[in-house]
Amino acid sequence: MAGGRGERFWPQSRLQRPKHLLSIVGDKPMLAQTVERLEGFLPPENILVITNREQRDAVLSVCSMLPPGNVVSEPVGRDTAAAVGLAKVIVAHRDPDAALVMLPADHVINDRTGFQTVLDAAFQAAEKEPVLATIGISPTEPATGYGYIHRGEEFLEIDGRPVFRVRGFVEKPNLQTAKQYLDSGEYLWNAGMFVWTVEAIGRALEEHTPGLHHGLRELETGLGAGKPVEELLDEVYPSLDRISIDYAVMEKAENVVTVESEFDWDDVGSWPAVARHFKADSHGNTARGATVIEGGNDNIVISDKDHLVAVCGVDDLIVVHTDDATLVCPRDKAEQIKTLVGKLGDDPVWKKLV
Amino acid sequence: MAGGRGERFWPQSRLQRPKHLLSIVGDKPMLAQTVERLEGFLPPENILVITNREQRDAVLSVCSMLPPGNVVSEPVGRDTAAAVGLAKVIVAHRDPDAALVMLPADHVINDRTGFQTVLDAAFQAAEKEPVLATIGISPTEPATGYGYIHRGEEFLEIDGRPVFRVRGFVEKPNLQTAKQYLDSGEYLWNAGMFVWTVEAIGRALEEHTPGLHHGLRELETGLGAGKPVEELLDEVYPSLDRISIDYAVMEKAENVVTVESEFDWDDVGSWPAVARHFKADSHGNTARGATVIEGGNDNIVISDKDHLVAVCGVDDLIVVHTDDATLVCPRDKAEQIKTLVGKLGDDPVWKKLV
Repeated sequence: MAGGRGERFWPQSRLQRPKHLLSIVGDKPMLAQTVERLEGFLPPENILVITNREQRDAVLSVCSMLPPGNVVSEPVGRDTAAAVGLAKVIVAHRDPDAALVMLPADHVINDRTGFQTVLDAAFQAAEKEPVLATIGISPTEPATGYGYIHRGEEFLEIDGRPVFRVRGFVEKPNLQTAKQYLDSGEYLWNAGMFVWTVEAIGRALEEHTPGLHHGLRELETGLGAGKPVEELLDEVYPSLDRISIDYAVMEKAENVVTVESEFDWDDVGSWPAVARHFKADSHGNTARGATVIEGGNDNIVISDKDHLVAVCGVDDLIVVHTDDATLVCPRDKAEQIKTLVGKLGDDPVWKKLV
Repeated sequence: MAGGRGERFWPQSRLQRPKHLLSIVGDKPMLAQTVERLEGFLPPENILVITNREQRDAVLSVCSMLPPGNVVSEPVGRDTAAAVGLAKVIVAHRDPDAALVMLPADHVINDRTGFQTVLDAAFQAAEKEPVLATIGISPTEPATGYGYIHRGEEFLEIDGRPVFRVRGFVEKPNLQTAKQYLDSGEYLWNAGMFVWTVEAIGRALEEHTPGLHHGLRELETGLGAGKPVEELLDEVYPSLDRISIDYAVMEKAENVVTVESEFDWDDVGSWPAVARHFKADSHGNTARGATVIEGGNDNIVISDKDHLVAVCGVDDLIVVHTDDATLVCPRDKAEQIKTLVGKLGDDPVWKKLV
C-alpha cells in the first residue's frame, strides 16, 4: 500500500511526493526499501503496489524491479478497505488459492531476516486456518504514537512461535495506559501488516462490509472478462465505500490472530521519529544537509546541499528547508504540521505547495 | 558614511550588500532614503558618500542622483575617524570655509522637516562658534540599545532651540540606568550625527589624534597636487589609524555641544527593531513576503515572494529566508547573529555567504 499523502513530512513530502517516495530514513525511497525487504521471500512478479494516479509515474520509476503491470493506481482514494479489496481481487484473479500479505510502504525495518521469518509464520498460520493474521510488534517502550493489539490465548504455534487470538484493537493510548500495556505483556504494537488467504479476506469483506464487497464483485467480473484493470477502476472505484480495513473488518471479525514479532519496527510518523534514526551531535542536535547550529540543543535541522540553514540560540525546534518552502515548528508540536498542510491545501495561493 | 557590514541583518545583509543597500524599512535602500532626506537642504553636488571598494558599484547605482565623483570608496576599512578625516579633506579641498554634517546611511527618520530644521540649527551653531556639534535625540523610552549624551548647561540658542555643552558620552546603559537617564531629562540618544566646520574638526583631529592627522595631511597634499582621489587613498589609507571618531575625538574634546532634537529617529540595529516599523497582526506576528504563521505569537518572519516560510506553534522567533541561506533565532537572542556571522566568515565553506 503506497498511497499516503504524508502531510507530516511537509515540506519534503507533497501529495505527489509522499513519505514512501522519499529517502526519509536510509538512502533509498521507503517504498524501494519495502520491496527490497521481500527479496528472497517473494518473487518480483508476486509483489503488487497499490498507489494513486498522482504518484503512479514516480512509483513506477522507484519500482523498476517489478513488472510495470504490478503497479496499480487508484483513480480516487477510498481508504484501506478498498485497497485491500482491490489487492484481493487481483491476486484471486491470478490464483484463487493464494494467500497475501498487505504491507505499508513507508516503515523502517532493518532486520530483514527477522521480518521474513515472521511473515513466513503468518503465511503458514493463514494457510492452515481461515484466520485474519496481523503482525504484532513486541513493544520496547510505552509508545503513545502507535495503536495496540490486545492479544488473547495462544491459538497456534508455528515453528515454535506463538500465534495468539486477538481480543481487540486499541487506539493510541496516553503514557500511563501505554505503561500498563507494556507491563502487562499482553499488548503488541499494531504495525498495520496483515496476512490472509484470498478466501478468508473475501469472506470477511462479504460479512462485515457488504456494500464494499458488492463493488468488488464488479471488479472481479470485469477482470474475468479481460478488461484492463485501470479502466475498470475508473468505472468502479469512485462508488466504493471510503473506510479503513481496521474499522471495516479487523475490529469486527472474530477470527483475527496476531503473530508476535521481535524485529525492529518504526513507522517513523513524524520528524522527531525520523531524528531517532540519525546520530545526534553532543548537544542532541540532528542535522542533515547544509546546516549550522550555534548555541542550541535538541534541534532537528534539515536542508539540502546548497542552502544553508543557520539555527542560533534555540532548542527543540524542527526546521526543514526545501526549494520552495521552509517549515519551522517545535518538536513537541510536530502533529500540528498536518493541520498546517490542511490549511495550505485550502489556500488558493499555497495549495500548489501541498 | 555608508561602509558598514550589517552582520546583524544576515542573511539579508552581506559584506557586499549591507543594511544601507537594503530596503530594510521603507521601499528604497536606506542609503537612498538618507540622501533624499537632504533634498531641499543640500544640493546633490554637496552630498558626498564614503563607502568601501566592495560596495562601490552598488552605492553608485543607488546614488544615481549624485555626481559619480561624490562617491568615494575606501580601499580598506579604517573606522569612522579616518572616514571623518577623509570627508574633511575632500570638503576642505572644495571650500576651506565650509561646514559639513556627517550622517550614518542606515537610520530611519520619517520627519524630514524636523530633521532639516535641526540640521540647520546645528550648522548655524557650528558656523557661529568653533564647536563640534552632535545631534542629540530626546529619548522617548529607556532604550538600552543606544549610547547617550549627557548634556550640560545651555551654550547657545538658535532660532529658540537650545544648544547644550556636552558633559560626556555614555555607552549603552542597562535598563535601570536608562530609566534614570530618561527621568533626569539630562540625557539624549547619541545618533552618531556630527556637524562642524572644516577648521574645527581639522583642529580637533590634529590635537587629539595627531597620527591620523599626519596621514590626512598626505591626502591633502595629494589632492592639492591634482591626484585622483582613489589612487591617493590606495597609497595613504592603509597606513591610517583604525579608531572611531567617538574614541579619537568626541570623548576627548572640550568644545563638544549637542543640539536637542525631537524628530523620530531609529537606528534599526536588529531584526526586532525592524519589526517595530511594520504592522503586526493580532497575534503580534510581523511578516513580510510569502509567510504563513499558524498558532504562534510575536514572531518576525521574512521571506521573498516565491518561497513560503511556514511557522507553526512557536513564539518570539526570528525567521529570515533568502535564496541561499535561512536564519532561525529567538527574538531575544538577536545579538547572537553577529557572532554567528563571524563564525560563518571563518568557515571555508560558508564564508561565501557572509
